[in-house]
Amino acid sequence: MHTFLQHNPTKLYFGKGQIEYITKEIAKESRVLLVYGGGSIKRNGVYKEAIKQLNAIHATVFELAGVEPNPRLATVEKGVEICKEEGINYLLAVGGGSVIDCTKGISAAANYEGEAWDLFTQKAPIESALPFGTVLTLAATGSEMNPVSVITNWESKDKIGWSSSHVYPTFSILDPSYTLSVPQDQTVYGIVDSMSHALEHYFHRTPNTPMIDGFIESLLRTAMETGPNLVENPQSFEHRETMMYVSTTAFNGTLSNGTDGGDWATHRIEHALSAVYDIPHGGGLAVLFPNWLDHVLEEDPSRVKQLAVNVLGVSPEGKEEIEVAREGAKALRAFWNSIGAPNRLSDYSIDERHFKAIVEKTFIKPGVGTYKEMDHSSVLDILKRSL
Amino acid sequence: MHTFLQHNPTKLYFGKGQIEYITKEIAKESRVLLVYGGGSIKRNGVYKEAIKQLNAIHATVFELAGVEPNPRLATVEKGVEICKEEGINYLLAVGGGSVIDCTKGISAAANYEGEAWDLFTQKAPIESALPFGTVLTLAATGSEMNPVSVITNWESKDKIGWSSSHVYPTFSILDPSYTLSVPQDQTVYGIVDSMSHALEHYFHRTPNTPMIDGFIESLLRTAMETGPNLVENPQSFEHRETMMYVSTTAFNGTLSNGTDGGDWATHRIEHALSAVYDIPHGGGLAVLFPNWLDHVLEEDPSRVKQLAVNVLGVSPEGKEEIEVAREGAKALRAFWNSIGAPNRLSDYSIDERHFKAIVEKTFIKPGVGTYKEMDHSSVLDILKRSL
Repeated sequence: MHTFLQHNPTKLYFGKGQIEYITKEIAKESRVLLVYGGGSIKRNGVYKEAIKQLNAIHATVFELAGVEPNPRLATVEKGVEICKEEGINYLLAVGGGSVIDCTKGISAAANYEGEAWDLFTQKAPIESALPFGTVLTLAATGSEMNPVSVITNWESKDKIGWSSSHVYPTFSILDPSYTLSVPQDQTVYGIVDSMSHALEHYFHRTPNTPMIDGFIESLLRTAMETGPNLVENPQSFEHRETMMYVSTTAFNGTLSNGTDGGDWATHRIEHALSAVYDIPHGGGLAVLFPNWLDHVLEEDPSRVKQLAVNVLGVSPEGKEEIEVAREGAKALRAFWNSIGAPNRLSDYSIDERHFKAIVEKTFIKPGVGTYKEMDHSSVLDILKRSL
Repeated sequence: MHTFLQHNPTKLYFGKGQIEYITKEIAKESRVLLVYGGGSIKRNGVYKEAIKQLNAIHATVFELAGVEPNPRLATVEKGVEICKEEGINYLLAVGGGSVIDCTKGISAAANYEGEAWDLFTQKAPIESALPFGTVLTLAATGSEMNPVSVITNWESKDKIGWSSSHVYPTFSILDPSYTLSVPQDQTVYGIVDSMSHALEHYFHRTPNTPMIDGFIESLLRTAMETGPNLVENPQSFEHRETMMYVSTTAFNGTLSNGTDGGDWATHRIEHALSAVYDIPHGGGLAVLFPNWLDHVLEEDPSRVKQLAVNVLGVSPEGKEEIEVAREGAKALRAFWNSIGAPNRLSDYSIDERHFKAIVEKTFIKPGVGTYKEMDHSSVLDILKRSL
């Protein structure tokens, strides 16, 4: 194991009716910026619920609506402007990972005088941030309990992941009933995204981490059991509940305690891909991840084999290690396809045309991959396998 | 799942050399009460290390040495007296669970004007506590990252578990190398205690908790793989490391998120038993737990069967559910015996003589058992099975 600090400051309120804790967490008469997306929270009643709680503490509420699925720098800047003009002292994100990521961006940049983009590209350090809470309406990214955010600069077509210990949510409300109306495609992408986070954690190279490896395997098995049931019964509170807790746990630090953190190359490639094509993040991951497995197992099949046997139901009997690993990659692709995730880049009408740009954007920050360090040709290989 | 709040305020610094973080966590020139046990920390160098860090922040250090294996009220009171007389503002526990539990008692009672025992028996509410950190030297109780403590009133022979959100350690240093010199019997009791905590969590009655159930099973399998290796190679840093992280995780809240918290009847019975006989807690648990399993499976074998199959390596093929469950209880007893834990009460020369008193002390607080609610006759049955 590596040395590590285990400490997550976010208070997670999980379960039906927990939204009431907003009134305990946000100080009376705060000046709150409410951040949300395309308006689904108005249709499903969550907006009204949140406003009710904010009224109860006599908050002065400002709004930033219309945060995009891949949240954009321009929207962050709009939020920062409101914060500065209106003296906002608390942010409340109501939505999925994109809304929360955008709120993290605003919270960091509101305390900074320069360009927000400089903070996300590490040109300037993040030294403080406005406090914020979240009300989650989509089980997917885990942003509700971690210090990570992804922001897209639409002008330069750069999508960048960044993190800072200052942007942990102070609290997050996870009420599974708020996810009952999530559309089928978003539900599927959420399952893929959560599983990808667990998979990226799994591909570390730290010796002697049996318990955490077992936790990751257990989380993945739970997602594979629950995923198909949820897709068949999207109105099931129990399945929504399971996936909501799975997705938060997949990326809140639990799965990286003592490891090198895992290999996030697939996320890096997907960010580059969806910066160029604006496709859903979960869809991009579903296409890329099995091909990343196929790429790395050629060099070292051991870990993919372990995944195949312990999680993906592949029998190792009488087979070479590499054969078992290959069947594992195939089984993961088949599983995701079975719940409705895309199979190939051509499902999005994507061809080789912009591969060079995608490869370059993958390396927008140096160091891609740790289980297997990637160079330009390995990223290109994965993209080609994904055609 | 039940609704729950997931938030553990303790900062866990895990790994070699982490003791240096004392200087970041305790304010300069603090007045510190250093709490420790029988002096093993002087032999293995941990005392010297801790003092070095405290000197670096120019702390004024007072000492409370000699905390007993089952820490006593009288020792807590001695600590409280020092705190009040010397204006202590920070406590540092260096030792195992007993030292930490004693420190929790001191930290709660130092801010209280009445009798300390009233706080532990819930006659008076705990409204604040002195902050404290811990340096762990024994992997067992999990006290280093939870709000729970057990104190024995030696005059009345009552041993009571209590908890308060005010007595989470502010930080805990977990350096596995500090456990390399733990004697064999303590090592074994630590394995039993950690596994018991996980087992007690496992016996909840909350539906739809597949991921957490899987986490518990994974933790138990890790303990069963590592335990025998550690007992054979007590100088192995890697095995110490694994068991140290297992024991903290077994009782830091991770395993009860969303469940009813599990069934702690065995711990309650053991506390009564070791209040009367002053035997090692882990030894008492090793005797009692398989008999608790045998007792409850007669009524409902389903969960014991699941444990038997998923953790204890029992094959269910062609067997009745109750048969598989019985083999599970037997397998747990056999495993603990194989690493050197006691088998029966007679190993401690304990007979029926004081059973009545033990049963009564088990009910010192009302409500024993949730998976199966116990009455006096069921506790007596478990004790008789343990003879």
